[in-house]
Amino acid sequence: MGRREQDLKPASPTDQVGLWLSDFGDALAANDIQAALALFNDDCYWRDLLCFTWNIKTSEGKPGVAATLQGTLASAKPSGWRIDGEANRVDDVTDGWFTFETPLARCKGHVRLKDGKCFTLLTLMDELKGFEEPRGERRERGVQHGVSRDRKTWLESRAQEEAELGRSVQPYCVIIGGGQGGIGLAARLRQLNVPALIVDKLPRPGDAWRNRYKSLCLHDPVWLDHMPYIPFPDHWPVFSPKDKIGDWLEMYVKVMELPYWGGTECTHAHYDAQTKEWSVTISRNGEMITLRPKQLVLATGMSGVPNIPKFPGAESFKGTQYHSSQHRSGEAFAGKRCVVVGSNNSAHDICADLWEHGADVTMLQRSSTLVARSETLMELSSGRLYSEAALKRGINTDKADLMSSSMPYGVMAKVQVPVYAEMATRDKAFYDRLRKVGFMLDFGEDGSGLFVKYIRRGSGYYIDVGGSELIANGEVKLKSGVSVTRITPDSVVLSDGSEVPADLIVYATGYGSMNGWAAKIISQEVADRVGKCWGVGSGTTNDPGPWEGELRNMWKPTRQEALWFHGGNLQQSRIYSKYLALQLKARMEGIPTPVFDLAAVHHLS
Amino acid sequence: MGRREQDLKPASPTDQVGLWLSDFGDALAANDIQAALALFNDDCYWRDLLCFTWNIKTSEGKPGVAATLQGTLASAKPSGWRIDGEANRVDDVTDGWFTFETPLARCKGHVRLKDGKCFTLLTLMDELKGFEEPRGERRERGVQHGVSRDRKTWLESRAQEEAELGRSVQPYCVIIGGGQGGIGLAARLRQLNVPALIVDKLPRPGDAWRNRYKSLCLHDPVWLDHMPYIPFPDHWPVFSPKDKIGDWLEMYVKVMELPYWGGTECTHAHYDAQTKEWSVTISRNGEMITLRPKQLVLATGMSGVPNIPKFPGAESFKGTQYHSSQHRSGEAFAGKRCVVVGSNNSAHDICADLWEHGADVTMLQRSSTLVARSETLMELSSGRLYSEAALKRGINTDKADLMSSSMPYGVMAKVQVPVYAEMATRDKAFYDRLRKVGFMLDFGEDGSGLFVKYIRRGSGYYIDVGGSELIANGEVKLKSGVSVTRITPDSVVLSDGSEVPADLIVYATGYGSMNGWAAKIISQEVADRVGKCWGVGSGTTNDPGPWEGELRNMWKPTRQEALWFHGGNLQQSRIYSKYLALQLKARMEGIPTPVFDLAAVHHLS
Repeated sequence: MGRREQDLKPASPTDQVGLWLSDFGDALAANDIQAALALFNDDCYWRDLLCFTWNIKTSEGKPGVAATLQGTLASAKPSGWRIDGEANRVDDVTDGWFTFETPLARCKGHVRLKDGKCFTLLTLMDELKGFEEPRGERRERGVQHGVSRDRKTWLESRAQEEAELGRSVQPYCVIIGGGQGGIGLAARLRQLNVPALIVDKLPRPGDAWRNRYKSLCLHDPVWLDHMPYIPFPDHWPVFSPKDKIGDWLEMYVKVMELPYWGGTECTHAHYDAQTKEWSVTISRNGEMITLRPKQLVLATGMSGVPNIPKFPGAESFKGTQYHSSQHRSGEAFAGKRCVVVGSNNSAHDICADLWEHGADVTMLQRSSTLVARSETLMELSSGRLYSEAALKRGINTDKADLMSSSMPYGVMAKVQVPVYAEMATRDKAFYDRLRKVGFMLDFGEDGSGLFVKYIRRGSGYYIDVGGSELIANGEVKLKSGVSVTRITPDSVVLSDGSEVPADLIVYATGYGSMNGWAAKIISQEVADRVGKCWGVGSGTTNDPGPWEGELRNMWKPTRQEALWFHGGNLQQSRIYSKYLALQLKARMEGIPTPVFDLAAVHHLS
Repeated sequence: MGRREQDLKPASPTDQVGLWLSDFGDALAANDIQAALALFNDDCYWRDLLCFTWNIKTSEGKPGVAATLQGTLASAKPSGWRIDGEANRVDDVTDGWFTFETPLARCKGHVRLKDGKCFTLLTLMDELKGFEEPRGERRERGVQHGVSRDRKTWLESRAQEEAELGRSVQPYCVIIGGGQGGIGLAARLRQLNVPALIVDKLPRPGDAWRNRYKSLCLHDPVWLDHMPYIPFPDHWPVFSPKDKIGDWLEMYVKVMELPYWGGTECTHAHYDAQTKEWSVTISRNGEMITLRPKQLVLATGMSGVPNIPKFPGAESFKGTQYHSSQHRSGEAFAGKRCVVVGSNNSAHDICADLWEHGADVTMLQRSSTLVARSETLMELSSGRLYSEAALKRGINTDKADLMSSSMPYGVMAKVQVPVYAEMATRDKAFYDRLRKVGFMLDFGEDGSGLFVKYIRRGSGYYIDVGGSELIANGEVKLKSGVSVTRITPDSVVLSDGSEVPADLIVYATGYGSMNGWAAKIISQEVADRVGKCWGVGSGTTNDPGPWEGELRNMWKPTRQEALWFHGGNLQQSRIYSKYLALQLKARMEGIPTPVFDLAAVHHLS
C-alpha cells in the first residue's frame, strides 16, 4: 500500500506509530534533519537518556530537536527502529513503545503523536552491547563444573575482594553515601562489573533510616519504592516503617554483594585533572585511608546539607534546639513546650511525634504548604502507574518506570493541574478545616501539585498521614503567616510581635542544594563550578530560571569532570541509577561518550 | 446445544475439560458417586492436597476414587467448579486447570482426560476463607495513619515479640531445624499469622550450608530452588555456592521477620495427650528452657540421622574417620590416602574435593549408582518446567509447582522411563567410559531415573558436576562391587580380599529415616508409632511396599498427634510447606480437619 492511500484511511494506533517510526528512522538514516523535523509538531519535546546525547536532556520545539539531531546524529547512528507491542489511542493522542539500536547500545523509546506528528519522544539506553548484565539466560553458572586443583570458592573470592578493594586494588568508582541511592547504584554497577565502593559514616547499611525519628514511615507507597533487582515481596506493607526499610537495605547490601564501608567518613576529595584520578581521603573507624578512584559519586541525599537559619539570640536559648534531621524521638519532651519552625513533611511528622509523646506543640508556618492526603494522592496520582490496580492491568514496575520517564518535565505541570483541581474538590471538607485554623494552603504556584513541586524545589509539601488532623483540631497549635524575629533564652519571638515560650526548638527548615556536599568534601570552587543541583528552572519559588527542562546536575555529567550527583526518592533512585551506571560503565570501558550540550551553570546554590 | 450434539463434533480442549468439569461438579453436588465414577477411566489417579481429605492422598482406580468420595464428600461439600484458562491437547491427553471451593477454602485443580474420561485429577487447597494471606491488595498498611498517643512502632512491636515469644508467650508451633525447610515453613506460618519458633543448634541461619565441605554447590539449578515469597533475583547463579545460599537464608529470616533461635539444641520433647500440648526442652546457648507449643514440626532434613556402618576393627583405626556429613574440606589431607565408602552424590563431591587438595583417593562402590550429567538432566528433565525457556513460555515458579504437583507418583515412573532412555543414548560415550573402569551404573530398577529414585529412597544417584571424569580417567581410584569386610589400624579390607591403605575413611553411607529424629528427641515408642518416613512403597530397594502412592509421613498427619515431618529439596520444601502451613493454621483456628485414611505404618525405619 502506498503512503498516500494509507493516509486516506483511519490507521490503527499501531499502524500509525509504526508508520511514524519508519519515516523517522528513514530520515535519520539519511541524515535528513529537515525530513525528521517534518514529523514533529511545533509543540514538541524529545527526551533523551544517553542514546544520542550521552546526557539526560530534553530538547524542546523544532529548533531544539534540530539542534540536538545536528549535534548528535553523526555519532549516535541510530537504526533498527521497531514498534514494541500495540500502540494506544486516547482522545487525540496516539502513543506507542519501540526499540532501536546504536552501534554501541540497545535502546528503547516511546512516542506520543498528535495529528500524526510527534508531540513527545523518549529515547533511552537500555544496555551497552557487549556489556549486558548477567541476567536470565546470561546469568553465571556459580560453580565451575569439572574439577580443578586451583579452584577458588565463592567464599574465598569474596574474602579476597574484601581484603583487596580499597587497599591493593582501587575501586573504579567511590560512592559517598550509603542510603538507598548509593546502594541501588552500587548494585547496578556490580551487575555491570564496575568495581565500586560505598562509604558511609554510619556503621550499618540502613542506619540513616534507623536513626530518624521513631514514627517515620515512607511517605510513598510500596509500589513506588522497590529497589532494583530484588523487589519487595508482595506482602510488604504499603508504607514501610523506617526500621524495616533499614533491615531491607542491610540485607540487600549483603545478598547483592556490595562493597560497603560503614563507619567511614569522607574528609576530603581532590581531583587531579592530569592523572584523571580522585584522591579521596577517608577515615574508616579511625584509620585514615586514601582511595584513588576514577569516578566520584555524591549520593548524600538530594536534600543536601541541612539549612539552619541564623536567628538573633539563638545562642542564648537555654532549651534544646536542633535541625529536623537531628530529631530522634519526642520521648524526652513529655509536658515540654516545643516549637517546630516549618510546615512541610518533617515539620508535620515531628509535631505529631512530639504530640504523641505528650508535648505541648506549636507549629510555625511562614508560607503556604501543599497538603495532599495520602489516600487521595495514591488514588489520583501515583496509583495510575504504581498500584495493585496497575499491576492487574499489566503495568509492572519496569513498565511504570518507562512510562513515567516518558513524560517531559515541560509537559508535566500542565498534565497535573486537573489532578489537583479534582483533589481540591474531593477533599474540600478537609481543606476547609485546615483553612479555618489559619493553615495556608497551595497546590503549587500554577496548581500543578506535589510531584511537580518536588521536582522544582524538593520541598513545600506535606503528604498527610494524620498530622493535619492535629492542626485542624487544635491539638497542635498553629502560628501561620509569621516568621521568627529572634530567640530569647526561653521563647521564640515572632514577626507579629507574639512570643511563644519554648523548651525545644526544631528547625524543620529544609536542606541546601547537593553541591553543598561538594563544597564540604571537595572545595567551594568545585561546588561553584558545578552549581545548583535539583530544580528544572521553572522560575517558581526556590527553582529560579532559566528553564532547563531536566533536573540540574542529577545523574548526568557536571561541569566537574568525573563528579556525579545521585539522589531522589526511591523511585527516582531506581530509575536513574540505571543511566548513571551506564555512563560510568561506558567511561570505564573507554567507550566514547561525547556529551551533547552540557548544561550551563546559572546559580551557585 | 444438547449434550448429545456436543459429543458428536470434535470439541475444543477447553470445551471438553469444561464439560467434564461441569459433569463432575454436578455429580458431586448431587452426591451421586456412581455418576462421578462414570467420568473416570479404569486407570485413574486422584491426588488430593487437603481439600477433600485433610491429608495428602492419591486415590487410585475407580474403587480408590469411590472410597475417597464416600469418605469425604459429605464434609468437603465442593462447589463452583470453573475452568481456569485454556485447556491443551497433546496426543490423546487433554488437560486443563480449574478452580473450585469448599465451605472452608478456595481450591485449585487440574485434570487430564483420555477418551473424554479422567486419567489424573489433582485437587489442592489454595487458601482458607477468612484466613487469606495479606498479599497484594490485602497487604498491611504498615503504619496506622492518624495519630495516637499509644502508638507502638514496628521496631517496638518486634522487640516485644522477641522478648516474649517462648517466654511469656508460647509459640503455637515449634519447628526443630532451621535449614531451608524450617525457614520456608516458618515464613508461610508467619504470613498466616501462626506464631511459630524455629530452633536450630547452629548459631546463624544458613550455617548448615556454611559448615559443609567448601566446594559444595546446589545440585539443582536455580529455577527449582526459589524460597517462597522472595524469589532469587534473575542474576542469581544457576548453581548457588553453599555460602551464598547461607547468606540468602540468613537475610530471608531477617526480612521475613521469622522468630529464630540459633545456638539452641532440642534435648527432649514430650506430648501430653491430655492437655494436647508438647513440652519441648531446649538448651539455648546453655540456658534450659521448656517450650509448650501445640504442634511440633521436625524439619531436621529429610535425610534423617547419619547412617554410620559398624565395621569390625573400626575402633582400632589410627587415622581419621567420619561420616560424610562431617566432611568440611580436603585441605588437611594433601598427600594422604583417603578411602571414601559410597558412590552417591556426597561420595563423589568428597572424592573430588579430596583430589583437588592433592589427596590419594579411592572410592568404594558396593552397588550400582544412577549417574546423570547435570546439563543433560536440566535439558531433558527439570528444564521442561523450571528454566529460562519455561519462563519464556509463561511457566513461572507458581505454575511449574502446580504442574509438577499434578503428576501422581503412580504415573511418574512410567513417564520418566523414556527420558532416561534418551539420556542413555545421548550420553553413551560418557557412560561407556565409566563402565570401562568398572563403575556400576543404573537408571533405577525400572529405568525410571533420578527423581523417581529420589522419591523412593532419597539416595542412590550422582548428579555429575565433574566427579565422574575423575573416576573415568583414574585420578580417583575405584573399587567396585565390593564391600568393607573389616578395618585395620591403617587400612580397609574389602570383600574381594584386597586391602586399601588409609589415613582417612569417609563414610558416605547415607542417612536413616526421619523418624530416627523422633526417636532421638521424643522416644523410640513415638518413632515406631509413626514409622518410616519418605518412600512411596514402590517395592524397590530401600522403598519396601505396600504401595502408598505418597511420601510416607511427609507434610501430612502422622500416627502421632501434633507431630509433623517437613523436608525435601528446595522445590519440595517450597511446594509442600504451603500445605503443611494450611494444616497447622486450620488446627490453630479450630477449623474441623477430619483426616481421611491416615496412612498405616508398615515399617519402623
